[in-house]
Amino acid sequence: MKLAEATPFEEVLSAGGDEIRRLMEDVERQLERISLGYGDQLARSATSTLAAGGKRLRPLLVFICGGGDGTVAEQRALVRAAVSVELVHMATLVHDDVIDGAPIRRGRPTIYAASGREVATATGDFLFSRAFSLLGTNRDPGQIRTLSAACLALARGELAQRRDAYATDVDADRYLRRCELKTASLFVASCRLGALAAGRAPSQVEALGRFGRQVGLAFQLLDDVLDVIGAPDQTGKQRGTDLLEGTTTLPLILAGESDPSLAAPDLHSIDSRERAEELCDRIAATDALESVRRRAFDLVRDARSEVDGNLPPPSSELLGLVADRIVERSK
Amino acid sequence: MKLAEATPFEEVLSAGGDEIRRLMEDVERQLERISLGYGDQLARSATSTLAAGGKRLRPLLVFICGGGDGTVAEQRALVRAAVSVELVHMATLVHDDVIDGAPIRRGRPTIYAASGREVATATGDFLFSRAFSLLGTNRDPGQIRTLSAACLALARGELAQRRDAYATDVDADRYLRRCELKTASLFVASCRLGALAAGRAPSQVEALGRFGRQVGLAFQLLDDVLDVIGAPDQTGKQRGTDLLEGTTTLPLILAGESDPSLAAPDLHSIDSRERAEELCDRIAATDALESVRRRAFDLVRDARSEVDGNLPPPSSELLGLVADRIVERSK
Repeated sequence: MKLAEATPFEEVLSAGGDEIRRLMEDVERQLERISLGYGDQLARSATSTLAAGGKRLRPLLVFICGGGDGTVAEQRALVRAAVSVELVHMATLVHDDVIDGAPIRRGRPTIYAASGREVATATGDFLFSRAFSLLGTNRDPGQIRTLSAACLALARGELAQRRDAYATDVDADRYLRRCELKTASLFVASCRLGALAAGRAPSQVEALGRFGRQVGLAFQLLDDVLDVIGAPDQTGKQRGTDLLEGTTTLPLILAGESDPSLAAPDLHSIDSRERAEELCDRIAATDALESVRRRAFDLVRDARSEVDGNLPPPSSELLGLVADRIVERSK
Repeated sequence: MKLAEATPFEEVLSAGGDEIRRLMEDVERQLERISLGYGDQLARSATSTLAAGGKRLRPLLVFICGGGDGTVAEQRALVRAAVSVELVHMATLVHDDVIDGAPIRRGRPTIYAASGREVATATGDFLFSRAFSLLGTNRDPGQIRTLSAACLALARGELAQRRDAYATDVDADRYLRRCELKTASLFVASCRLGALAAGRAPSQVEALGRFGRQVGLAFQLLDDVLDVIGAPDQTGKQRGTDLLEGTTTLPLILAGESDPSLAAPDLHSIDSRERAEELCDRIAATDALESVRRRAFDLVRDARSEVDGNLPPPSSELLGLVADRIVERSK
């Protein structure tokens, strides 16, 4: 069985050995089956979302944080945790597309575009519910609390992003707080869930949670860099999409610090793809992207220090590799 | 502390004694506090939803099914279960209002109307997440599975209702299957959660689940009767709202059986409040409402037989009283 698509984390999969690859294939199989038995319309819309794939980075983190050498029962618990996290991730994407009225995601029509707001809202609710229903099978209230804390943070992050839309006074701190809610929270949950499902010691659960937070922030910083200079055939979206949606990102904030003509811009004036790309070019002409990358590298270095010595070598090395790929990727 | 509003279940509260009333007041207090600490905008939108009140019928069912005589720890678990169920109920209302573009609910502007689609979608997600986060504290995977099964059914019911909108071929069976998903599922969860949180025997949990299913269906049948003949100052909404939204209900289906001119109507032609009220009058002129009420009474009788003898008298009598009020209410 093939994984959904080539991922920037292929190298990690290879280094992780057959065990992790087999678990990742289990995730794909379960995601494919998740909407069976729930009626035609839901099956169509949920399956199209699940099949649209993605990097499957969150399940990968679950497995590496869990370690690959557990009993069969532990591995099943890890797969359920991994599928739950990916379902929550997908649920938020489906609802984000409703909120944004987005026509395309990962090169395919969104559920919103194909089936309308009603089906998309209900499909997102379905995916959230399925995540908790599945994770409940692990019979560990700590895992449920971990996932629901992440869901709460995601909802707050979504609200923060809407509240900040088109605001001209978003500074780096406010931006990072939003990233923490909207992106890092599910990375924290992935790492903690892997550790909890594998029965790791509390100190390791906490250290992996901190690791997740830092790589999650680094991941978002790189996403924002790719929004400015990513190749659309790699990222699957146009450059400047964030700016077109009125979202102030760190590259823009830092560009404004080195080029005063870019400070506190009115994003309402970025009303076409051409204008968005022009603003991207102006940001790229400053040292902002370099600064953002440097911050991301710093986060990854801190993340690595959380796990070095705290976890046995195969896991800590693989996590280091994931962290590196997160800041080196081009898609 | 006052309960949110006068409820058709006031008599049940009185019969239930101080214990249940105190637990219901705990629910109000927890609902009021639920959004504190999550940022201003969310607090405003969630608080306005929670404060808008409602009949609090689902928490009441949790408490009666749990019995009022448990330890302090059991009572805390019951309150958490009750608040979780009410939060899920509210989350679905908030998302329904987004889907319907509804301006008013319970006489107040909806979150959708007051704050837009983004805030409303995220608020619904927040309320769902908070429900699972809270219920997770009960440390019982069976309770999580019960609530997530209900959430799945609710999402499927929402989809079924959209799929059936303006369809002319919805028969009574299809209508009842939809009610089972969209309404009865959360009544089932309320009754089961009460029984689980109180540590009742498995056979009682199952019997109470069946009770919940039957009163849930009866509740929806009465709602549909009230949509046709309810007084707007009692129900808080215009007559014929379902019909205006293209929703075929049992009164309409049965009216079509006794008056052929009402069979398989094109609800697209019901495009104004006046036309909706006119159709309501024509439905009320048939024996359809009487038939629907009779079905609801039959369901309540079956529901009562599930608990008589299966539960000790105070609980079974209170449940019988709730079931009666469900089919006798005018709001």
